[in-house]
Parts: sequence; structure tokens; C-alpha cells
Amino acid sequence: MTRLFEKTYPDPGVAPGHGARAPGPAAEVRAWQYREQQLEEYSGQSALEQALPTDGDGFVWIHLQGVPSPGQLEQIGTAFGLHPLALEDVRHQGQRPKVDYFDSHAVIILNQPGLAQDGIILDQVNLFVGARFVISIHAGEQDPFTPVRQRMRSHSRSFNRLGAPYLAYALADVIVDQAFPLMERLGERIEELEESVLANPGSDTLAQVHTLRRELLVLRRQWWPTRDVFARLLRDDVDPFGLELAPWLRDIHDHTIQIMDLLESYREMATSLTEAYLSAVNQRSNDVIRVLTIIATIFIPLTFLVGVYGMNFAHPDSPWSMPELYTYYGYPVLWGFMLAVVALMLYLFRRRGWL
Amino acid sequence: MTRLFEKTYPDPGVAPGHGARAPGPAAEVRAWQYREQQLEEYSGQSALEQALPTDGDGFVWIHLQGVPSPGQLEQIGTAFGLHPLALEDVRHQGQRPKVDYFDSHAVIILNQPGLAQDGIILDQVNLFVGARFVISIHAGEQDPFTPVRQRMRSHSRSFNRLGAPYLAYALADVIVDQAFPLMERLGERIEELEESVLANPGSDTLAQVHTLRRELLVLRRQWWPTRDVFARLLRDDVDPFGLELAPWLRDIHDHTIQIMDLLESYREMATSLTEAYLSAVNQRSNDVIRVLTIIATIFIPLTFLVGVYGMNFAHPDSPWSMPELYTYYGYPVLWGFMLAVVALMLYLFRRRGWL
Amino acid sequence: MTRLFEKTYPDPGVAPGHGARAPGPAAEVRAWQYREQQLEEYSGQSALEQALPTDGDGFVWIHLQGVPSPGQLEQIGTAFGLHPLALEDVRHQGQRPKVDYFDSHAVIILNQPGLAQDGIILDQVNLFVGARFVISIHAGEQDPFTPVRQRMRSHSRSFNRLGAPYLAYALADVIVDQAFPLMERLGERIEELEESVLANPGSDTLAQVHTLRRELLVLRRQWWPTRDVFARLLRDDVDPFGLELAPWLRDIHDHTIQIMDLLESYREMATSLTEAYLSAVNQRSNDVIRVLTIIATIFIPLTFLVGVYGMNFAHPDSPWSMPELYTYYGYPVLWGFMLAVVALMLYLFRRRGWL
Amino acid sequence: MTRLFEKTYPDPGVAPGHGARAPGPAAEVRAWQYREQQLEEYSGQSALEQALPTDGDGFVWIHLQGVPSPGQLEQIGTAFGLHPLALEDVRHQGQRPKVDYFDSHAVIILNQPGLAQDGIILDQVNLFVGARFVISIHAGEQDPFTPVRQRMRSHSRSFNRLGAPYLAYALADVIVDQAFPLMERLGERIEELEESVLANPGSDTLAQVHTLRRELLVLRRQWWPTRDVFARLLRDDVDPFGLELAPWLRDIHDHTIQIMDLLESYREMATSLTEAYLSAVNQRSNDVIRVLTIIATIFIPLTFLVGVYGMNFAHPDSPWSMPELYTYYGYPVLWGFMLAVVALMLYLFRRRGWL
Amino acid sequence: MTRLFEKTYPDPGVAPGHGARAPGPAAEVRAWQYREQQLEEYSGQSALEQALPTDGDGFVWIHLQGVPSPGQLEQIGTAFGLHPLALEDVRHQGQRPKVDYFDSHAVIILNQPGLAQDGIILDQVNLFVGARFVISIHAGEQDPFTPVRQRMRSHSRSFNRLGAPYLAYALADVIVDQAFPLMERLGERIEELEESVLANPGSDTLAQVHTLRRELLVLRRQWWPTRDVFARLLRDDVDPFGLELAPWLRDIHDHTIQIMDLLESYREMATSLTEAYLSAVNQRSNDVIRVLTIIATIFIPLTFLVGVYGMNFAHPDSPWSMPELYTYYGYPVLWGFMLAVVALMLYLFRRRGWL
Repeated sequence: MTRLFEKTYPDPGVAPGHGARAPGPAAEVRAWQYREQQLEEYSGQSALEQALPTDGDGFVWIHLQGVPSPGQLEQIGTAFGLHPLALEDVRHQGQRPKVDYFDSHAVIILNQPGLAQDGIILDQVNLFVGARFVISIHAGEQDPFTPVRQRMRSHSRSFNRLGAPYLAYALADVIVDQAFPLMERLGERIEELEESVLANPGSDTLAQVHTLRRELLVLRRQWWPTRDVFARLLRDDVDPFGLELAPWLRDIHDHTIQIMDLLESYREMATSLTEAYLSAVNQRSNDVIRVLTIIATIFIPLTFLVGVYGMNFAHPDSPWSMPELYTYYGYPVLWGFMLAVVALMLYLFRRRGWL
Repeated sequence: MTRLFEKTYPDPGVAPGHGARAPGPAAEVRAWQYREQQLEEYSGQSALEQALPTDGDGFVWIHLQGVPSPGQLEQIGTAFGLHPLALEDVRHQGQRPKVDYFDSHAVIILNQPGLAQDGIILDQVNLFVGARFVISIHAGEQDPFTPVRQRMRSHSRSFNRLGAPYLAYALADVIVDQAFPLMERLGERIEELEESVLANPGSDTLAQVHTLRRELLVLRRQWWPTRDVFARLLRDDVDPFGLELAPWLRDIHDHTIQIMDLLESYREMATSLTEAYLSAVNQRSNDVIRVLTIIATIFIPLTFLVGVYGMNFAHPDSPWSMPELYTYYGYPVLWGFMLAVVALMLYLFRRRGWL
Repeated sequence: MTRLFEKTYPDPGVAPGHGARAPGPAAEVRAWQYREQQLEEYSGQSALEQALPTDGDGFVWIHLQGVPSPGQLEQIGTAFGLHPLALEDVRHQGQRPKVDYFDSHAVIILNQPGLAQDGIILDQVNLFVGARFVISIHAGEQDPFTPVRQRMRSHSRSFNRLGAPYLAYALADVIVDQAFPLMERLGERIEELEESVLANPGSDTLAQVHTLRRELLVLRRQWWPTRDVFARLLRDDVDPFGLELAPWLRDIHDHTIQIMDLLESYREMATSLTEAYLSAVNQRSNDVIRVLTIIATIFIPLTFLVGVYGMNFAHPDSPWSMPELYTYYGYPVLWGFMLAVVALMLYLFRRRGWL
Repeated sequence: MTRLFEKTYPDPGVAPGHGARAPGPAAEVRAWQYREQQLEEYSGQSALEQALPTDGDGFVWIHLQGVPSPGQLEQIGTAFGLHPLALEDVRHQGQRPKVDYFDSHAVIILNQPGLAQDGIILDQVNLFVGARFVISIHAGEQDPFTPVRQRMRSHSRSFNRLGAPYLAYALADVIVDQAFPLMERLGERIEELEESVLANPGSDTLAQVHTLRRELLVLRRQWWPTRDVFARLLRDDVDPFGLELAPWLRDIHDHTIQIMDLLESYREMATSLTEAYLSAVNQRSNDVIRVLTIIATIFIPLTFLVGVYGMNFAHPDSPWSMPELYTYYGYPVLWGFMLAVVALMLYLFRRRGWL
Repeated sequence: MTRLFEKTYPDPGVAPGHGARAPGPAAEVRAWQYREQQLEEYSGQSALEQALPTDGDGFVWIHLQGVPSPGQLEQIGTAFGLHPLALEDVRHQGQRPKVDYFDSHAVIILNQPGLAQDGIILDQVNLFVGARFVISIHAGEQDPFTPVRQRMRSHSRSFNRLGAPYLAYALADVIVDQAFPLMERLGERIEELEESVLANPGSDTLAQVHTLRRELLVLRRQWWPTRDVFARLLRDDVDPFGLELAPWLRDIHDHTIQIMDLLESYREMATSLTEAYLSAVNQRSNDVIRVLTIIATIFIPLTFLVGVYGMNFAHPDSPWSMPELYTYYGYPVLWGFMLAVVALMLYLFRRRGWL
């Protein structure tokens, strides 16, 4: 189930950069040197030492899949001169998406949204972007960046010309675009729920709508700051993201706005779904009770009538003592009268539109 | 039915400008050269080559009706030096309205709203505006720009004086003004729904209100950015839209605000319609049940009474053994008493306003 | 009834300034020359030619009551050099209040609110304000500006000193202040509705609240831009409205804000009225059903009891065969028991607060 | 009762500064000269002439308790050179709180909130602040400024140093701080209402919540502009309120924000109270009906059973003709069966949690 | 219980800085001198005199645990030259979080949130920050700053380099981070409530949700200004908080935003919980009534039938006088018929989905 509170936080009073809760085993580390459309890979535990930034052209891309161990973080932090506050954000999962600028590098934190069995999953992605290096740390299980590597190898003019910042853009673009198939599936789910609400609102529909609303809530809490990340990158226009990257950043920014718009629409649809569900259930319940009440109402006068002729008035000489009981056609006449009463009531109910 | 999610998006990780999903067959291409109130047409597949921009006065208008093929896009992009990101937005329908500035041209994306059998239709319109050319790509089936061509031929002083940007304004004005008849029809539909909700709320009224709310939601998601497009054109005041076009752009901007205001009012009316419907249905259901309960309540004491005299108390000598049964006028007296009970109850119910 | 959509709009694609729908007959034209507390009138159809702006002191005021004919508009437009887009807004009623600046004049569009038999009426007022002239076009039937003319004749120092812009201010002030009596009457209506909702919510109360909400919606759609008109006049501080007029404009601006505040409060009251009405109706319906159900519940055990003694168990020798029927005091004892049951139930219901 | 519309407004078209409706008799006038911790009083009708501003040190404070007559206003206006628009706002009670700057003085309008028998009372307070004078006009019945005079006489260094503007601040502070006891009492009322809603929601609870919401609505309409008054004084930093007064103004500003926050919280609580009330009433009504329905449901099968044995099947020879009636223990067995049915139903209902 | 109104305020008219209500006994005072990783403590009542700021390096930290007495405040205020308005805010508990700048020092007011038995507790924390001193006044019972002192003693390079402002940051960080465990517990409570609402909504669930909403309301009223405090510190960039502290302040700022986001999500969840609760209760009540009504509806026709054969029609010779009573198999046939009726009704009800 999508949790409302998912942050790991340091104990209050602990020095920043020295938080206690370091999750999990070591992450898988891979490193590449990119130089003029050549992408040389250094995998394994020793990759970090081998792929240190060189003085010539090109740049280094280091990718960690999984939550890194404190040792790995310290090693990378020392090698590339990363700020301790920036490294702390890697250790504490559940960060809010943001961008921070330090002297030699910028840090972008994003959360990759995905749909698992039991709800929305958010995998934190930390991007450290310097002039000559990109370090990407992806907390999830699957590496989504394989297509980027293929592009680097094939038609890589932009990578050549714009360097490490363009790679950072490409990685952020992959993360943001993961939201589109998710939005599509959510849209389909809303439309299915809509149909099932209007057709036959089962007892689990409300729970499904409730789950949906919670997921949208969590997603929206993520997406507002995601949008702000790219709005800030566009607005600040600081190194290493120069003017040349602006059209590409604007493109991501447009995508985040589109997804935000969709999220807001979905939220309204979900609210309106809850109302529709409640009204449908209410109406159905009212329908049942109305029909049943009508049945009861038809029989009640009849029951009274047959009760009348079940009375035992029996003054031996009185002609007023239930003379109907002793008429020749009394019984069938009563049946006829009762049928007439039923017909009259049905007619009246139907004319008033109650049936 | 108006869909919540309608965007075509590239697979995450694919390079921008190289998306896979290119929809449909080739679009119909027409081209015109405009020079001093002369409008010369080059139709057919070869029009693109013939109508290349000339060095003298006037400008070129190229119009593509339908979603263009990748080949057509590449041809136009090469001929006029269009940015690949701008061309990508043509291929992926369902774009958010926006304006983008590139070195030699601006790109305006609008969505023309229309009302089809099964809900709101949005036809994407891409306008590429350069100093000497306008390229309009309209994804719908019908070309709405015929009246513009008539104006170019007849009283075309503004086209002469203000050139290609004025044509772009005129095309955008046509697209925006398509919203007025749509708003009028939506307004009428709301008023019809209002009447039917207050008069006789049928079972499909709620579904109609629901559809209406969804359509308004989709329209509003479109209209916010549409308004922003013209607010930005007014504010930015960049080439090719100079100061001279400001009054005309302000006019479109006013129209978009008017439509936005109407949309917001409609949305409030629709919300209030849902409430009114629910309350009407609820009240009607309550009325039915109240009347039926009153009928039942009137008969219940009577049924008790006739039950009393259906008892078989029969101590042979006791004077207490249901002596009423053996009185001369017992039966008619009981009828009289029961009628009195009915009259009393009707009187009490009416005085309390329950009937 | 107050309509949701009231704009007359040109067909999409028609050139601005050349809309097709020109409503109604010619307007009544009156013209005045104001010079040092003298107000000379030129009435009738030929007034426009006679009152052309003169070179000396003073200014010209031309007033058109009713929607002018295209001929009248063209005549005035040519005489005073008015912009065609500004004239178009006169022809298309239902404009949004706004202010526009052109080279030689400013245009203010307001809508005078009024209360007619069948709802809120909005009469469009167009004010063309130049350095030496004011042209007022009032689409309604009654001329509200008579008191202004009286002030011009009597204590007219401000008119002398501040000239045509002060007259424009005075006219706008009249239009805006029309809203106060309207707000007062709406306030009274809300308070009446409040009382009737809490005292006896009739079946037409909901319709009245609904009408009220719609009227407030339409009024608010008007009043936001009205407020913006004066905020913009204050902020822009352009000709012909100079610094000297600022205190007077601030006064109108304050009035528009006061009315806006009232409108928002009224809207909240109206929403809360709907809720109160629904709850009152619901509670009343529940009360009826509760009382009726209690009546039924009291009789149901009694009916069961008398049913018991209507059974025909009749084993000739069995002492278990309904011996009660053959006891001496059986019948009155049963009555006593039944009365005791009724008393007990009434006591229990009352103690639980159900009666 | 707190009225929604309380403004007195001029008839539309009447010149500003010449409104017709001048309320009430003459106000009580008092005047003081302050000079180096000396506070000399000039009371009575002739005070205005005696306390004219002097050339030396110190300043004059004129206080009018009650709504002044037109004569009084004119006398003061002439003596201190006050702007006619500023004087008009004194005559028309129900003004929106605001601050206006004129050449020689500033005008602050506040509304002192108070709690009377029949709701919130708002007493308009007009402060005219010049370099050497303060004129306070308080429309209420009681003068709240006595503590200020005591402070002027005792520890008055600030009055000496900062002069008339500090007095104006002190007076405004008194008016704003009147809101704290009011907020405290409103907070207590909400908590009482909360308890009574959750414990026993009587029929007048809803009316009380409704009254509360209306009062909060009126208060909030006042408090937004009150806050703006001090935000503007802080921001504008114009004479006579110079930089030296900033910390004191910030203190009032903080108070207005605190009260605003409380008001918003109270409004949310009140909304949530309405919902809680409705749900409590609804649940109680449902409880009643459920219990009654259960009683009825238990007796209905029993009544059927006794009806069965009240039938008169009587074929003389048939062994199928209600043989139960002629068994030895038929009657007690039936009672046993009926008791068993009751026990079973009670068991089932209880297991399902319906009792 | 979390109170809505908790401020202690001066009587209106009382001079600022001279409020009457001084709460409680003397606070516990401790003082430390920090100089190059040395932390020398001066505890007890005389600490204030001993730890006066020295001329050399390092800074003084004075901590008061509990609400200080007026004497203590005056002593500190005189020793460090604190502004009387700033000291007044210590005396009046329930302040809004804010930051104020005075000549020689800045004042930060925060409220430390905590969860006690009967709801949210807010302990006011006042931080006076000068170039060479920090005075912290914590109104609660427990001192949360012990870990800070440990950090000062051990790895204190930042304390050495950045001085007193860094200590102020560290203290504020402790206060803000107290919100994380609180948010975590609130998140768990919401999830528990969610489960209990969907599984079995007891009668106290609504009261719990109501309490939760009120606590969130009070927390949010605190957190908005808390966030503003750090946004202002970042934006203003004034002494003693210079540029060097910016990354650390941004870190707190991020935390306040994260908590704000969570609060807004929680509030939405709580609102949606109320709705879910009401709908669950309503549905359950409707279910009960529906089942009961179905039971009644099944028996009503049967009761009518047995009533029919309880009638006493007895014309001696008429063959129409209830001949069914005298047929051989009449009684079992009737039973069969009644069973068929029951089966038919059950079938119909089930097919319509009512059972």
C-alpha cells in the first residue's frame, strides 16, 4: 500500500551529515568514460578508482544502482569533492525533489514514480552534476538508463557538444517520462472505476476510489517540487546548466506541467467519483426501499379488509351484525373489491412516477 | 466520449525529436504566396517546393490539413529551418497549448475545441511564424481558415501592412473564436439540465451532468494554457510579434479571458447542478416514502381494531367476554369509530404539514 | 431569468471590426457643450454635427441612450477618430468590463447592474474619454446620468478644473454606485431566505436559493473585471487620467472592493443556505418518518396479541387449548395488558428522547 | 443579529462629499493639549476652538465619541484642513478599514469589534493623523481610550519622543487588541458547541452554528482589510509614520495576522461543526429507525403465524384441514415455536451488530 | 485537549512591554562559555552575572528552561541590551513563530510541537541571537538541547568557524526536527483510522477523526509561519546570519516545507476520512434497513393470505361462500402456495441484487 509517511529522518539533535540510519547493503557500481562517441565501461567494485575524471575531453558517468553503503558514499564524496549535506540526502530516502547548487557541482533529487502490485512506488534518484562528471544514484531495482547509453553510442552529437550537463538532462528526462505510462494507466483506472460506479457500484468500489485518491495525493506531493526543480533550473541559468540547454530543459518543464495538469484533473475526477458512488449507492438503496414500501402499502389495506371479515360480530337478531358475511356473492365481491383497490393504487403510483 | 488522457508520448529514454509513434497518412498540403492583395495558390504534393520564400515583398502561407507524415515534416523543417523539438510536438498529438521562441521563428500550439456526437473534440493546431512565412498544421478534418483567405483577397490592408505575424494572429483568432459557439451550446445544455433537474430528475440526468463536468474539466485544462499563450505574447513583445500587433493580441487575450470566466461559471453551475440533482432525488424519494408511510400508519390502528373483534373470547357465562360482539349496533358503531380515527389522523397529519 | 451566456459574438473568421450582428434601431442621441458652468444642449439627430469639439475651453459630452445603429457609430467614430476595435465592442453587447488606451482616447466598458422582474439585468455602458470630449453609450432604457447634469450646472468647480476626465469619473461613479441598492436588496433577500429556511422550508425555497446563487455567480463574473478597471486606472496613471484624479479614482476603487467583499460573503451565505435547507428538509422528513414509525411500532405488538386470540385451537379435551379464551376476565385482562404494553413503550421511547 | 449589509451609502449620482444621509445627533467632543507629559483638557462644545494646534512643542488630541453632526464635521474639517472625501467616510458608517494619505494628514479607518447580546457589533473608528494633531472619532457608546490617557500622564517618554503618530499607533493598538477577548469568547463558544454537537445535538444547535458562521464571515470581511492597513503603513513608510515607528507598527501587524489565523481556523472548525452536527443528527435518526424496524421485524413473522391458526379451514372429514388445531399441546407448542423464532432473530441481529 | 485559543494577551490599552500577566515561577538558568571546543558551564542563579560576554574569541550561550520570571527577563534584557518588545513576547506565551531584527540582535520565536496524552502540545522557544551570544528560552519541561552540547564538545569545527549564529541554527534545527517523529505518529494514526473506518466504523471513530482534524488545524496554523521564518532568514541575508550559513538554513527550510507538504496531505486524508466514515455508517444503516424491509415484505402478502382464510363468510347455501375452506386439500395447498410466493420473492430480490 502507498504509505503517507515514507521519509527516513535523523534523530533530532544529530549533526547534519552524520545521520544514524544508513539503509541496506552496498549498491552496484558501474562507471563509463565518454569521449567522442566512445563509451568505455569500468564495472565492478574497483570502477570508482579507475574512472576518475581525466584532464582531456569527455566526461565520466558513474551510476550506482541501489542504496549505496556509507563507505561507497564517502569514497565518491572524497573523489569528486561532494558536499556532506548533499551526501546526507542520499542516505535518507524519501527526500522531496529539489535542486541545490554547490561550488563545483549541482545536485538534483527526483523520485521516479512507478506502479507496483500494492500501489505507487517512488524510487529516489540523486544526480550529481559537475562540469566533467555525472553521478547518478538510483534507489530502485531496475536500471532505466540503458536506452540513454545506446543513444550515447549511436547518434551522440548532442552529448559531444553539450557534455555532462546534457547527460544529466537526458537522465532526468527518462525519470520524468516514466510518469506518462503511469498517468495513462491511472487514467484508464479512473475510467474503469467511472463505469463500474455508474453501472453496478460494488462494495469494494469505494475502497478502490479511496486508494486511488491516496495515490494521487502522494503523487501530487511529489510532482509539485518536481516541476519546481525544472522551473528553477530554467530560471536560475547557472553553471553547469548554461543557456544552451534551455530548450531542452523547457521541454522537460512542459512535460512536468502536463503531468501536473493531468494529476489535478484526475484528483477532481476522483473526488467527483466518490460523490457519484455515494449518490449511486444511496439511490439504489432508496430504490429498494421504495419498491418494498410500495409492496407493503398495497397489501396493508387488503389485510385490513380481510381482518374486517374475520371479526366475530354475532348478535343473533341484529340485521347490522356483519350482514355482508351472509350475502350470496359476498366473498367474490370482496375479492373483486380488493383487486379494484390494488389496481387503483398501482394506477395512482404509476401516474405519480413512483413505479 | 471525451477522454481524460489523450496524449501520444515517446517511450521514456527515446531521444527527443526521434519519437516512434508517427500517426496516420500524409496530410493535404496547400501553399499560397501573398503579395499586395494577390493570393496565388500552389496546391498538390509539389506545392512545398514551389512556394519557397522569395526575396521581395509579401509572405508565404503553407497549410497542412491533417496529421503530416514524417517525410512531410522533414521536408518542411529543412526548407524553413525549423527546430527539431518544435517538429516533434506536431507528431505527438495532445500537446498543451504553448508558445516557444526559436532563432528564426516562433511556434504557437493551440487546440481547436469542437463538439462532436460523443463529446468535446480537440484538434491540435501548430503555427510556425517567421518574418516571411506562416506554416499552419491543423489536425482536424475540416479547414476552418477559408474566411481568412477571403479577407486576404478583399479588404487586406492589415495583411499588407503587418505581414506574416498578422496572418498568424488571424489564424489564432479563428481557432479561439471557435470556443464561443461551443460555450453557447454548453450554456444552453446547462440550462436544459437545470430545468430537467428541478422539474423531473430522470435516472440519466446524473450521467449527463457527470459527462458535462468531465467535458468542462478537459476544456479548462486546455484553456488555462491557451490564455497564457496570448498573455505571454503580449508580455514578451518579441519578434516577429512587435508592438504594432499589441491591440490585436489584446483582443484575442480578452476573448480567452471571457471564455475562461464562462468556463469557471459553468463549472460552478455544474457542481451546483449535481447537488441540486442529489437533493431533488433525495427529496422525491423521501416524499414517496413519507406518503407510503402515512398510508400504512393510517391502516395499522384499524387493522388492530378489526383484529380485536376477530378474537375468540368465549367464556359462556362471562359478561366480560367481548360483549361488544353481541350488541345490536356493534358492527356499524365500529365502522363509525374507525372512520373517526382515520379522520382524526388525517386532520393531525395535515395540521403538521405532513400531507 | 438571468442567463449564463449573454454575449453577442462575431462568427469565427470574420474580420475584427466587421462583425455581422448589429442589434436594434438607432439610439437616442443628445449632446452638450460645457464651458465655465454653462451647459448648452444640442438634442435630436443633428446634434452630432453641431457639437463637434471646439478649440477654446470646456469639453463636449455626447450621450447615446440605447444600442446605436452602425451608421451612428461610424459617424461618431469618424468625427472623434475612435479606434475600430473600440467601436466593435459597442456593437457586441455582453462585453467584459475593461479599460483600453488608444492614441487619442481611452475606452472604459462597464456593465450597470440592475434588478428586474426576472433577475439581474446588465446594461453595457461604453465611455470614450478624450482630452476634450466624453462619449457615453448606455444600452439600457433609462438614462441614469440626470443628477450628473444637475451637478454640472450648480456646484461645478471640479468639472471646471479637471475637465472631461472628471466627467468620465462622475459617470463611472454613477454606474458603480448602482450596485449598492442592488446589494442591499440581495442582502435582504438572503436574510428572508435564511428565515424561511430555518422556519418552514417550502418546496420553492430551494429554487429561490438556486436562482440567487446563479445571480451572484453572474454578478461576480462582472465585478472582478470592474474592480480591475479602476485598479488599472489607478496603477497606470496615463493620460487623460492624471495624478489629480487619483483620490477620486481611489474612491470608486474602494466602492468596487466593498461590493466585491459583499458578493463573496453573499456567495458563502448562499452556499451555506443550500446546506441548511437540505439539512432542514432532511431533518423534517426524518421527523415525519420517525413519528410514523413509532406509531406503527406501538401497534405491531398489539396486533400480534389480538391475532393470538383470534386463533382457532380447539382440541375438545385439552386444557392447553387456549384456556385464556375461556377465563371469566380474559378479555378485559388482555386490554389491560395491551394498555400496559403501550404505556411501557411510550415511556421507553420518551426516555430515549425519541418522542 | 449581525447584519450582512450595514453600509450607509449615498444615492448614486450624488456628488462625493455631499451625501444626504447624516446619522444621529451631535457627538460628545473632548480635546487635550499634550506637552512634555502634561495633558490639559478642554471639554464641552467650545473645546474645538480652544485646542487649535499651537506653534510650540507637543500636539493636540481631539476625540469625538458618537457619530458627529455635519456641523461638527465641517468645523473640524475647516480648522485642520481635512479632505472632504475623508470627512464623507465619517458620515457613512459601515466603511471598510483602510488608510489614505492626503497632503497634510493620513486617515485610518478601523472597525472596533465587540460582542453584544444579538451578535457582533462593529463601531467605526476614524483617525486623522497630522504632524501635530490626532483626531479620533469613535462611533460607539463607550470610550475605550481612557487607559491611553493614563499612560500619557505617567510613563510617557514614547509620547514625548515620537509625538502625534505614536498616539495614533496607541489608539489603533487599543482598537485591534479589542479583538483578542472577542476571539477568546468565540473560541470558547466553538468548544461548547463542539461538545453539545457530539453529546446531544439539540434542535437549536444548528441555528447557533449558523449564527456563528455568519459572525465569523462578517468578522473576516473586516479583518482582511484591517491587516492590510498595517501592512500598508509598514510598507509605504510615509509621513507622518516614519521609520522610527516601524517596530511598533510591526507589533500591531503581528497581532492582526494572529487574529486572522484564528479566524480562519474558527471558520474551518465551524464548517466541520456543521458537518459533524448533520452526521450526528443523521446517525441518531437512523438509530431510532433501525431499532423500530427491528421491533417490527420481530413481530411480523409472529403475526403471520397467529394468522395461520386463525384460519377457518373446516372440511369435516379431511385429515389435512389444519390438524394442528386439534392436537393436545398445539397451543403451547406454537408459543414455544414463536419464542424460538424471537430468540433466533435476536441472536442473528446481535451477531451482525445490528443491536 | 488541544485548545483552539491559547494565547495570553495583554489587556487592550496597556502599554506594549508592560503586560500584566506574567506566568509561573522562575525558570532554571544555565550558562556556558564556548571557546575553541571548550565548553565551560556556569549553572545556578548566579550564572547570568558570571557568563557576561567577553572580549576575546568564542561566544556565550544562556539557556532558560521554563517560563522566566519578570525579574530574570529584566536582568537578561539589561545585560545584553535586548529590546522590550522582544522580551514582551517571552512573557506572553502562544506567540506566532516569527523572526525580528533589532540593532544588536535578531529574535527567533518557534513553537516546539509534541504529542502528549491529551493532544498536541506547543512549547514556545525564544532565541535571541547576537554576534557573540545566544539566549535560548524554552517554555517546556524537558531540555531538548543536550545533543547539541555533546556536538559542541566533540566535532565542533562548524561551531568554531561560524560562531553564535551556527549555534542558533543548530538549536532551531533541533526544534524543527521534533516535528518528524510527530508527523510519523500522526501518519500512523491516520492509517489506523483508515482501516477502522473501512472495517468497522465504531461510534468513537468520528470523534477521533474530529480530534485529528483539530490537531492538524492547530499544527498547520503553527507551521505556515515557521516556514516563513526560515524563508525570511534565507531571503533577508542580514546579520548575524550571513551568506556562509545559507546552505544550513536551506536545509532547515527544506525540512519545514516537507512537513508542510505532509500536513496538507494529512488534512486532505482526514477530510476524506470523515466522508468515508459518514458513507460507511450510512451504508451500514441502509443495509440493516434494507434487509429488515425485505423480511417484512416477504411476510406481508403471507399475512394477507392467512387473513383471507380467517374470514367468516358463511352464507349457508351459497357455493361462493369461501368454498376453499371446505376442500379436502385446502390447507396444505395454501401452505404450498405461500411457500411458492416466498420462493418467487426471494428469487426476484436476488436477481435484482437486493440480497
